[in-house]
Amino acid sequence: VRLTQFSGAMIGKGEHRHFMLKEIFEQPQVVGDTLNTMLNPASRTITLMDLPFDLGSVNRVTIVACGTSYYAGLVAKYWIERLAKVAVEVDIASEFRYRQPVVAKGDLAIFISQSGETADTLAALRWCLDRGMNTIALVNVAESTIARTAHAALLTQAGPEIGVASTKAFTCQLTVLACVAIALGRANGRLPATEEARLSQALAEVPACISEILRADDGIRRVAEDIAQARDVLYLGRGTGYPIALEGALKLKEISYIHAEGYASGELKHGPIALIDDHVPVIVVCPSDELYDKTASNVQEVIARGARVVFLSDKEGQARLVNKPLAAFTLPSVDPFVAPILYAVPVQLLAYHVAVAKGTDVDQPRNLAKSVTVE
Amino acid sequence: VRLTQFSGAMIGKGEHRHFMLKEIFEQPQVVGDTLNTMLNPASRTITLMDLPFDLGSVNRVTIVACGTSYYAGLVAKYWIERLAKVAVEVDIASEFRYRQPVVAKGDLAIFISQSGETADTLAALRWCLDRGMNTIALVNVAESTIARTAHAALLTQAGPEIGVASTKAFTCQLTVLACVAIALGRANGRLPATEEARLSQALAEVPACISEILRADDGIRRVAEDIAQARDVLYLGRGTGYPIALEGALKLKEISYIHAEGYASGELKHGPIALIDDHVPVIVVCPSDELYDKTASNVQEVIARGARVVFLSDKEGQARLVNKPLAAFTLPSVDPFVAPILYAVPVQLLAYHVAVAKGTDVDQPRNLAKSVTVE
Repeated sequence: VRLTQFSGAMIGKGEHRHFMLKEIFEQPQVVGDTLNTMLNPASRTITLMDLPFDLGSVNRVTIVACGTSYYAGLVAKYWIERLAKVAVEVDIASEFRYRQPVVAKGDLAIFISQSGETADTLAALRWCLDRGMNTIALVNVAESTIARTAHAALLTQAGPEIGVASTKAFTCQLTVLACVAIALGRANGRLPATEEARLSQALAEVPACISEILRADDGIRRVAEDIAQARDVLYLGRGTGYPIALEGALKLKEISYIHAEGYASGELKHGPIALIDDHVPVIVVCPSDELYDKTASNVQEVIARGARVVFLSDKEGQARLVNKPLAAFTLPSVDPFVAPILYAVPVQLLAYHVAVAKGTDVDQPRNLAKSVTVE
Repeated sequence: VRLTQFSGAMIGKGEHRHFMLKEIFEQPQVVGDTLNTMLNPASRTITLMDLPFDLGSVNRVTIVACGTSYYAGLVAKYWIERLAKVAVEVDIASEFRYRQPVVAKGDLAIFISQSGETADTLAALRWCLDRGMNTIALVNVAESTIARTAHAALLTQAGPEIGVASTKAFTCQLTVLACVAIALGRANGRLPATEEARLSQALAEVPACISEILRADDGIRRVAEDIAQARDVLYLGRGTGYPIALEGALKLKEISYIHAEGYASGELKHGPIALIDDHVPVIVVCPSDELYDKTASNVQEVIARGARVVFLSDKEGQARLVNKPLAAFTLPSVDPFVAPILYAVPVQLLAYHVAVAKGTDVDQPRNLAKSVTVE
């Protein structure tokens, strides 16, 4: 018998009405704990655990996961390709395992699962092991089957996650993946030490930034009353904001039963814009980065068509938007690299407050189980 | 001035109430015309036009497109990886062009666009040319900018497509991509001649099979009355059926303004199943292939939760389903390789009849343009 270590206090809901809310508010702590396992704040460097293979010689990465973990993988693709210049493919586990993917011996495969027991992800891991790939598990449960089966396990320090809708596990997964991207770039020589220092500094500031977002929770709660009346909601984003839009939509769908869908902003004109009228609110993930102007231009267009927009951006981004949205939620100004970790938080809060306004069972939504251990 | 060749008869709506319906019914003809440019029915072999580079040495394929064309690319990924064992990445053009993707000189990139003028796709093509990639345009307009800019152009023989929602261009794109997968596999020696003959035979039978589906149109029209009452619809599929589910959802969204969303069946339990009740019909793309049992098991589950299911399968697949769906639409029994081309047709018909039942402007849906020539 092995005892899992966590304090008793983390199991209760504490002052919070639901486990999900408690878990959202734990994020500054658990993201910080996760960073502490990899980030040296003095030297501003990242060190992953010792791996039984050479990160520097990886020339292709495959990431396999389901649900929220899959969206964490999509963010990682942008990061790894940009920082380490290594091609990344991200796949849904239930598709990957059956589609006869083309992989090469010695390529790196990363399997993401909060529980470490997700059936399709585990089957995909076994398939990759059979083909001689180097495998890493990214899980929240050190003793889990996926952690024990892969060549190495990177652990999120999220602590037990009780709410069925994943929140803190997701931001901790992103935190680890950001460090993996940096470590890969350093190992293969494509990320200069000065860049590693700058990005590490940005990561070190994430916990405090999340705390700042959480203190502004009331702003999200107010707009949630309005969104709770909607039957359909669109989420838009570009670049790393696109997977955050997908994750925001999934959160709302899971716990409020509102049909929310995430879209890459650039795809809007290729179909979904036909849906938009004043009954379909649009939530936009739009930090001030090099893609800001493109997304903001999509937003102006949907506002002009009568859409009620909730605009998530920083101070500068809010100031630059010409047509005024239904609601503006202002996040801290940060390096665009860490923006997806921060922007994950308001979309969690929005889903939570909408579900509370609708009176659904937040911690145990209908039809859903915490871990999908069957196919 | 160059004159584009097409007969005057193809421009009118003929006996059909809308261009979209006319274009759906032209598919046996135009898919056949497209096949005729590549398929030799006597030798049962595929010949692409002469390309200015060697297909046999391609070791990675990137496919870039928007909207419906992007879904054609997703189907091609399954085909090319399976038949030619070459890794394929498919990307949304508006994401690809800005995300600093990792590509290699000499890799093959395919750009899919009905009009050949899609702004983001054209920008992505130019980006790839700058990086020394080998490029192929897959377009419906030979004189288009994308066709003239790429190293080579493969043409769909769909004729002018007037309806804003793409139908015949999509199935013709799939037809070309199926031939590309076979040609790649033969060129690199991974597809035996016997397999090429078998798959070519299956392709040769597609036009007749589409005619058979169109003759059963009444069955789709009947169920459309019911779906027209819904505000939200889910589409499910696995493998090559997954992009067809995405495309089916896009069609319904575009012309009926019903919020439809496509999902990989295996992802159902990771969130969207929370949405399902008797108000949300579920359309399932489920040919009798090696994934049938997995998808059918997802279907049994949603029927047990009260969902109204429209089940698209062949005779054998219908017979094997235990819990009876709201509606069953039976397609011809075919080689699973060509199934996505066939299953595209009933989801087009369903979207069309639902839109007619709702009284929307089928050929000119609100907010949408036929070609997206701005970002």
